[in-house]
Amino acid sequence: MNHEFYMREALKEAELARLKDEVPIGAVVVKDGEIIGRAHNLRETTQQPTAHAELLAIEAACKEVGSFRLEDSTLYVTLEPCVMCSGAIVMSRVPLVVYGARDPKGGTVDSLMNLLDTTEFNHRAEVISGVLEEESRQMLKVFFRELRNRKKREKKERTTE
Amino acid sequence: MNHEFYMREALKEAELARLKDEVPIGAVVVKDGEIIGRAHNLRETTQQPTAHAELLAIEAACKEVGSFRLEDSTLYVTLEPCVMCSGAIVMSRVPLVVYGARDPKGGTVDSLMNLLDTTEFNHRAEVISGVLEEESRQMLKVFFRELRNRKKREKKERTTE
Repeated sequence: MNHEFYMREALKEAELARLKDEVPIGAVVVKDGEIIGRAHNLRETTQQPTAHAELLAIEAACKEVGSFRLEDSTLYVTLEPCVMCSGAIVMSRVPLVVYGARDPKGGTVDSLMNLLDTTEFNHRAEVISGVLEEESRQMLKVFFRELRNRKKREKKERTTE
Repeated sequence: MNHEFYMREALKEAELARLKDEVPIGAVVVKDGEIIGRAHNLRETTQQPTAHAELLAIEAACKEVGSFRLEDSTLYVTLEPCVMCSGAIVMSRVPLVVYGARDPKGGTVDSLMNLLDTTEFNHRAEVISGVLEEESRQMLKVFFRELRNRKKREKKERTTE
């Protein structure tokens, strides 16, 4: 049981998002080797800005353990967390975050800043990056390419109508 | 109808939190003069790290309008938003945030940093601070004083048992 094993579970969640036409991002929370929370991005389906994979997985894990503190847990997520999800990690005291691909536009763990290593906050988390990076990145790349192609087709159809 | 009017509504929410032994923080989301979402801190009751007043009020507002974008809305909150709630503000594109009291330990709008004016993010929000500041601060102060006193009493009772 290693980081790749759990990241594959997070990738399975990302695949569930893709099947719903959601940006394919998945997350799992692991405690003592057991997955105690799993979720995928559901922003479009729910029309909730908070329905990111990490946030939903953290909520599922907290429900499972009956506590808002996830002190002995690890969060696995296919994409670098955004500002909101980094905040949820701080609030839930997750001590270790493992992610797949970087998010140069919105990532707040390595790319734009590091909110998980901010002395001013009452919690800091260790971060391991790049686990199954290529799989995560590829899934996102294909998703956005197909989305662009679909939009082009739709535009063309509208013009020729 | 001005900022104080809506902040009083946020304070009413904070009072509901206090009655549940929750840290008294309340929030409302306003669009075209109408309150489209209101909530109070429910972290202890729900044991969810995400159950902050702002996040729940944003979720309620998004449910009401059927969209994850709150582009023409104002968020009123009695206490300066934390990192997670600032992130939820960025994700929901709320353009204006009005808050009461500063949070020197966790505030990420003025106190520790300003996540709502970060060029790297795809959204920035205007901030108005200090609206009914004294009322918000006083409510929190009394809450924490009573909490400390209760803990002292409980400790004393345990020692004399």
